[in-house]
Parts: sequence; structure tokens; C-alpha cells
Amino acid sequence: MNTQLEPHMKSTENTAFAPGWYTIAASQDVRPKPKRFLLNGLPIVTFRDATGRSVALLDRCSHRNAPLSAGRVVAGNIECHYHGWQFDGAGECKAIPGLCGASEHGARRVPSFACRESQGWVWVYSQAGVVPDSEPYEIPFADQPGYLTIRQRLEMPGPLDAVAENALDVPHTAFVHSGLFRKNADRKPLEVVIRALDGGAEAQYIGEQRPEGLAGRLLAPQGGEVLHWDRFLLPCIAQVEYRLSDRTHIVATTALTPRTPHVTDLFATVAVKAPIPNAILRGVVKPVAMRILRQDMEILRRQTEQVERFGGEEFASTEIDVLGLRIKKLLREAASGKVGPLQEERRIKMLV
Amino acid sequence: MNTQLEPHMKSTENTAFAPGWYTIAASQDVRPKPKRFLLNGLPIVTFRDATGRSVALLDRCSHRNAPLSAGRVVAGNIECHYHGWQFDGAGECKAIPGLCGASEHGARRVPSFACRESQGWVWVYSQAGVVPDSEPYEIPFADQPGYLTIRQRLEMPGPLDAVAENALDVPHTAFVHSGLFRKNADRKPLEVVIRALDGGAEAQYIGEQRPEGLAGRLLAPQGGEVLHWDRFLLPCIAQVEYRLSDRTHIVATTALTPRTPHVTDLFATVAVKAPIPNAILRGVVKPVAMRILRQDMEILRRQTEQVERFGGEEFASTEIDVLGLRIKKLLREAASGKVGPLQEERRIKMLV
Amino acid sequence: MNTQLEPHMKSTENTAFAPGWYTIAASQDVRPKPKRFLLNGLPIVTFRDATGRSVALLDRCSHRNAPLSAGRVVAGNIECHYHGWQFDGAGECKAIPGLCGASEHGARRVPSFACRESQGWVWVYSQAGVVPDSEPYEIPFADQPGYLTIRQRLEMPGPLDAVAENALDVPHTAFVHSGLFRKNADRKPLEVVIRALDGGAEAQYIGEQRPEGLAGRLLAPQGGEVLHWDRFLLPCIAQVEYRLSDRTHIVATTALTPRTPHVTDLFATVAVKAPIPNAILRGVVKPVAMRILRQDMEILRRQTEQVERFGGEEFASTEIDVLGLRIKKLLREAASGKVGPLQEERRIKMLV
Repeated sequence: MNTQLEPHMKSTENTAFAPGWYTIAASQDVRPKPKRFLLNGLPIVTFRDATGRSVALLDRCSHRNAPLSAGRVVAGNIECHYHGWQFDGAGECKAIPGLCGASEHGARRVPSFACRESQGWVWVYSQAGVVPDSEPYEIPFADQPGYLTIRQRLEMPGPLDAVAENALDVPHTAFVHSGLFRKNADRKPLEVVIRALDGGAEAQYIGEQRPEGLAGRLLAPQGGEVLHWDRFLLPCIAQVEYRLSDRTHIVATTALTPRTPHVTDLFATVAVKAPIPNAILRGVVKPVAMRILRQDMEILRRQTEQVERFGGEEFASTEIDVLGLRIKKLLREAASGKVGPLQEERRIKMLV
Repeated sequence: MNTQLEPHMKSTENTAFAPGWYTIAASQDVRPKPKRFLLNGLPIVTFRDATGRSVALLDRCSHRNAPLSAGRVVAGNIECHYHGWQFDGAGECKAIPGLCGASEHGARRVPSFACRESQGWVWVYSQAGVVPDSEPYEIPFADQPGYLTIRQRLEMPGPLDAVAENALDVPHTAFVHSGLFRKNADRKPLEVVIRALDGGAEAQYIGEQRPEGLAGRLLAPQGGEVLHWDRFLLPCIAQVEYRLSDRTHIVATTALTPRTPHVTDLFATVAVKAPIPNAILRGVVKPVAMRILRQDMEILRRQTEQVERFGGEEFASTEIDVLGLRIKKLLREAASGKVGPLQEERRIKMLV
Repeated sequence: MNTQLEPHMKSTENTAFAPGWYTIAASQDVRPKPKRFLLNGLPIVTFRDATGRSVALLDRCSHRNAPLSAGRVVAGNIECHYHGWQFDGAGECKAIPGLCGASEHGARRVPSFACRESQGWVWVYSQAGVVPDSEPYEIPFADQPGYLTIRQRLEMPGPLDAVAENALDVPHTAFVHSGLFRKNADRKPLEVVIRALDGGAEAQYIGEQRPEGLAGRLLAPQGGEVLHWDRFLLPCIAQVEYRLSDRTHIVATTALTPRTPHVTDLFATVAVKAPIPNAILRGVVKPVAMRILRQDMEILRRQTEQVERFGGEEFASTEIDVLGLRIKKLLREAASGKVGPLQEERRIKMLV
């Protein structure tokens, strides 16, 4: 036994995994050629069937367990590279070369996952063989008239709850994104209203001044008070909304897909309206967003390594960690199926 | 708990390990200088003793557990690099530098393994301290007059049963070795007789036409019907025999030695008789064989990674998987010592 | 189950870890900038507080578990890189940017470790939150008039007990350090007295001739009988003392700090008195010592890999392993708090 780590360790479970729809790829990246991805450790293969529809199967041939993603798609069926067994988009076995007799058989099915294309992304339902009673999340303002929409995929080195908390956290911006966003000086108190949403939670910032950093000055040169909401929605949506003025509106929606217990794929859709030509806007928003995300990746990587070394999290929270504990609670409840009553609205003060 | 993998996982044991003789090296590679190898995870050191006989000991000094293979052989005894303890080929401790008194002592013995040289290979019996009641497998036609004999060692990325099934499997050849062997077109039905052997199993193909691919056309340009047997023999022999004509005969015998649960050393002995000069034959057989083996390595690597990820195999089999399940059963029975009655002869049809 | 390794495996615990003072760095390497190290697997951060005193905290922010060592020191407090929380040298939380209200709170404390600077090294007490009832070990003859003192840090690939036994073992020197020290020829018997010390053990060699190798000839060209002691002192001191003549005296003291179960940091302090100018002495002692240590690193790496592979040690010992078993016993007793009676003095003969 490691007598040094022991008194400081906490044995906690991995991040809870809530069932539901998860983004797995950009629509344009799902082609006839099969593509493998991981959903919470599970290898899934996606390809387009004979009708052009994107489909998703467990990436394991039912015969000798070779990865189907190493094969090819023949007339809309995926063909295993090892013995040539073929499966349709529903996972039914359609060919066993060499066999006299029928290929279709229950024991030869490959588990299949509901799959949808929506707003430029491909979404998969997390449980095999289930007909979902919901549809993927609809991203607000994406591709709406007057809005520039930017999509980006990134690999974040942390579990879903840490990535979501980081995306929706205000206090870290003065340190991790020092200069880009907020400064750790001249702070003023403002009010935060934290309220439950249906399957989610929201923090609204009242009386916030336009952030002083580079991003704020570019998008709202006139300054003044801004409207600002941070939201988490089960199972995987983290959303930041800023109304900097009547003419400037930003909604950054990230869909978070756990790849492994310590890596989360982040699929960002940023919809921006601003009184600036789109070409200039694109040239500003993307580099700033990427710089912010790279800084967050670095701190998430360090946090995740440390939590892994100690065998679990040991967090002390304060009231200005406004959404972190709610995100964990929502995930735990959704994972276990035991949903408690909605949490009451809370109002706190924070120096920003 | 990983809620995604769980419903798809199967907790199976590692490949059963049958006691018996295993090839560990080419005879010419065992020299006075000690050589380390792994037998099913166990480090063993082999060297030549004072009489020139190859011997095998557990590769762990009984004193402070340093690997004996890092030392040297002095007058037929292996000397540990750390404190100079010496052991003879039977594992007896023959010297402890600095000690006043006798070096021989039961607690200082290093476990030894029966070791034989036969037909160009060195074989080791899998259990330490045992006098085997059998001798290593005799490879048919090796070095017989009229037969060109080629030996080759390869490292296959899979467990013994997967490598053996792959070596003796017909249906995969049209896919993994497409063009070299058989095509997935113009298939004709033929009969396969599957019978038990003493400590093994055999599949005989009746009415098989000469394979259409490169290998077949080179060795039997006249075409016609061929005689073909695939055999597995405990604990580790996979053998493919082709009589392409009265003048052309190939026996490819592979001895499979599990190195770790996921890597198997393959020691191939190919004996070929053909109406072609040996120089040309050698120039043809070796490159073709190596290409086939490299293709098999690739698919085995993928299969093994996938099985490992899911924590075990989840196989659906059909009757044209003629030897795979029998190989697993033979290994399980030999490993547990509970041998069931011989399986009855079966006849099936296959499209080849 | 791995049926090959099993009969040869021994399930043993990791090396026992005794509480006490451990060296963690050279004094000059602890600066205002935070520095991370591992003590038996536990990440600890050290830095200098506002008074210039070196302090040591658990390298984990109490808030979101980011490593404090990635941050910076502000006015003697360490500031976390993630949200800017600050902690003083005692681990008290001194600032939470953004929070209205007090930052100090028991749940926000970071565990702190007693820390001392002594004789050029920084020492840390192994248990957090403890006021030790002892002070770090005082290294004899270090920086005394007439003594050249050399300090060196090395990373040894083995657990503390293996590194300590190796450092204090005589028989291996003829093999691992062949030519530098002793030869495995012309051995003569001498007497070894093994006695218990308070929290330690000592071996005294009676009648030892000056070692024949390079090191001996350089330091004591006149030859003759030498006085020689090897000592182990809890929790981490291994010491070799040679009086080669009235004018030549060497005390090599190594403080061993387990970094992980298989890696030990070695902090060596060599104090030498000899009738040779210091510049020449330094030019001789350091290269010879480094060559010896590199040879020991190689054999320790091999031993440790082997013990790890077999899941534990399986050692056979003789009476000339004079201190190894006592070191293990002392560590076990100190780790468990159950200290047995002092072992009696023993006298043995050894051929050196």
C-alpha cells in the first residue's frame, strides 16, 4: 500500500455518463468510407448506407471481432476486412462468403445506434438498439440570417463535467485567459441568478460590464452593460450567450462527447451577429476562440492528470463556482435515472 | 463503471495454455552466450552447457532476482552479473563468491526446463522440474530428399488460438490475401471432412480446385484438383498440407509459442517438393509466404486490439469456421487436464 | 490465469515506507519559483515564503485540484494557475479572487509538510500536518575543516531497500564494479561484525586490506589494512565509511528518497580527507563515484524490472548478505510502528 498517497486519496467514481444524443462528427466528415470514433470508451463505426443516410454500428464484427471500420462499404453495407461478412445500417448480417445457406441470424447482428444529421453535425444516441423518444439538441441561432456561424472540433484533455464547468466558469478567465478577457483588478460586484432549467441549469449575470480584454473591445467597442447567460443542458451541452448590444450577439454552443474517461471531444458552434463585415468577424472570432480553448486545454490537462494521480477528485467549492456542482448533480441523476426535484433559484454576489 | 462498454463486454479468460513442448529458437541461435525468451510470460534463459547441450533455466537468479541472461557462461555454468553466483544447466548453484562454505543448497536452485534440439529448432518443455514423458513434435518432410526446407521465425500479434485459427482458415484468404490465393467470385461448393486426431483435429478439403491466385499458378501451372489438409496438434502445431500434383507437395508446419497473452512467436518450417529448380523455388516461396504472413499479422493485430478493448472475445461462428472452435476446446481440455471423448467426424459444404 | 508465471510468483507488498525526514532537493534548487517533487508517489510543491524559508505543501489546489507547482509565488504565497487561489507556507487559503467574504476556511487548507534546510539539502517530514519530534539527520564530516565535500543527486531505478542494500553490499563490487574496486581472485577471509544501532544497523569489516582496484590505489597508494564500516539508519540513510590511513578518511552518506515504488532519488554527500590537493581529489573522486553509481543503476534497473515482472521478490540469502535483510526488517518495523528488540551482534567470515 502506498502509505503516502493514501491519506490524501479519495476513491470516487468516474464522471457519470448520462444517456442521450451525442455529437460524433461534422456532417461532412461522415462519408461512404467507414469512420471510427469512441463514445465513452465504446468503439462505434459510422458510414453512409445505400440511401446516403449516416448510420452507426458497434465497431466490432460479430464473427471474429475485427473492427468493421478497417473494412469498406459495398453497396451500402459495411464489409469486414477479415472474412468479408457484410452488415447493413441496422446491423443485420447480409453476407457470409463461403457459407451455403442464409446469412441473416440474430446471433450475427451487430448492435446499431440511432443516428441523425442536424445543423451540420452527426449525432448518435448513446444506447444500442434503442428507438429514442427525443431528437438531438437544436442549436439556437446557428445559420440564422444575420448570424455568422463557425464550427470547430477540438479534443479536450478532461472528463465531460470538468470541460463543461471550465467552459461555463467566470472566475478562471482572469487567470487562465489573462489579458484576453478579464483582469484580476478593478473588480466590481455583480449579481448572479442561478436557476434550474428543464434538464439543465443556467447562470445569469446582472450588471456585468463589457469585459475589458481583447475579445470584449473588438466586439463591443462602445462598452457598457452586457447581458450574459451560461447554460448546461443534459446530456452534453455547454452554452455561453452574450448580448453586448442590440446589434452584437454571441451564442457559443459546445456539444461535449466523452471519448474516454479522461478525454472529451468538443464540438463548438459559434453563432455571432455584429456590426462588422463577416470576413473581419471570422478573422477575429476564430483566432481568439482558439487561443482561449488552447489555454483551457492546458489547465484541463494538468487538472485531469492530478485527479488521476490521486485516484479521484477532492474539491472545495465556494458560491462563485456557480454551475460546477449542479452539472455533476444533473449528470449523476440522469445516469442513475433518479431525478430529484428542481433546485430553487439562488442569487449571489461575485466580484468580476 | 463505464456504462457504454459494459453491455457489450464479455469477461473471458485468456487463451488456455496447454502443457508440452514449445519451440523457443532456431538451433543456430542458441550459443554459449545466454539468450532470454518468454514462454507464456515467463522469462527463460537458454545457453549451451560445458558439453555443448542447450539447456534452459528460469531467467531469475535465486539470490537477488537479477536476470541471468544479463550474465555470461563460465565453463558451462551461467554466472549472474550482480554477485557472480553460478548455476549449471540443471539449475544447481555451483559458486557463491565470498561465501565460506558450500554453495549448493536446495533454496538456491534455479528452476530448470527440459530442453531438446530437433530438426533445426530448440524446444523447451513448459513446466519446470518435470521429466517429460514425450519428445518434441517431429516435423514431417523437413529436410527429406527432394524437399526444399525453409525455416522462418515471426512475431504474430495475437494469442495462440487466434494465430492457429488464422493459419488454418480458408474463408479469410479471399479477403485478407486477395489476389494471392483465392478470389471472392466464381465460388464452387466443395466438401470438407472434419475429423479428430489424437490430441488434435484435421480438416480435409474434397474436390478443391487449385487456388486461382499467384501462389497456386506458380506452383501448379497445370491447374486441376488438389489434395488439401489443415491440422492442429496439441499443444502448438498448425499445419497446412497441399498435394497440388504427384510432383508438387507442400507441408507448412508452424510451431506457435505464446510469448505474452497477446503475442505469439511463430516458427515456420516449410517443406516443398516441386518440379522447379530449388533456387527459383526458394525465390518464389519465401516472398509469397512472407507477404501472406504480413497480411495475417495486420488483421491479427486489429482483432487482438479489439478483443483486448472489450475485455474478451464475443464470437459468432458458422460451420465454415471448421477448426477454430475445436482448437479452443483442445487447448481448454489440455490446460485443465480434463480431456473429453473424441469428437465425431463431420462433413460440411463450403463455397470456395 | 497465467499458468506459466504462477508457480514462480510471490505476492509481496511494496517496500515498506518508514515515516521520517527525507531529502527532497539541494538547498540551492529551492527558489521562490515553485518546484514539484514526488515523495513515495505523493506530489509535493516546495518554494520559499516571504521570509525566504523553504516550505512544502501538497501539490494540489484544494479548489479544483490543479497542481500548485504550475502557478507562481506572489508575496510569499503560492497562487494557483487556474482560479488564482493563494496559499501561505502553512497551507492556509489567503485569497479567492471574485469571492465576497473571507478566503480562510478549514476545508480550503492545503496539507503542509514540515520542511528544514540543513547542510546544503532541503528535508521534508513525510507526514502532512505533523510537528516532528526529531530533526533531519546530521551528516558526519560534511563541510568539516580538512574535508572536501561533494554533493550529487541521482535517480536510481529501484525501491529504497534495494538501493540501500546495493550501496552497502561488498560481494557485488567484484562483479558489477570489476576493476574499479575488488577482484574476484586472491580472496582472503576477513571477519565482519554486524551490530544493531539505534534505528539502524552497522557492519564493521575487520582485517580488510586496501581494495586492489583503481579507487583504492588512488586514495591509499601505500596499501595496508583499512577500517571500513557500512551503516543503514532509518528512515533513509545508507553510509559507507573508510579509514584508509591516519590521513585518508572517506564518509559517503546517501539519503534515499522513494519517488515511486520503483524509483529512488539518491542524494549523496561524500566527505573526503586525503593528502592530495583538493582539485586533484575532486577530479578523481567524482568520476570514480559516478562510474560506480552508473554501474549500480544498470543492475538495479534489471533487478527491479525482473521483480516487477514476477510480482514480487523471491530472494535466497546467505550470511554474506550482511545488511540486506536487516534493512528490510527495520523498514517494516518502522512502517508498522511495531519495533522488535535490538538484534544481537553477529560475527561472520567472508572472503574478500
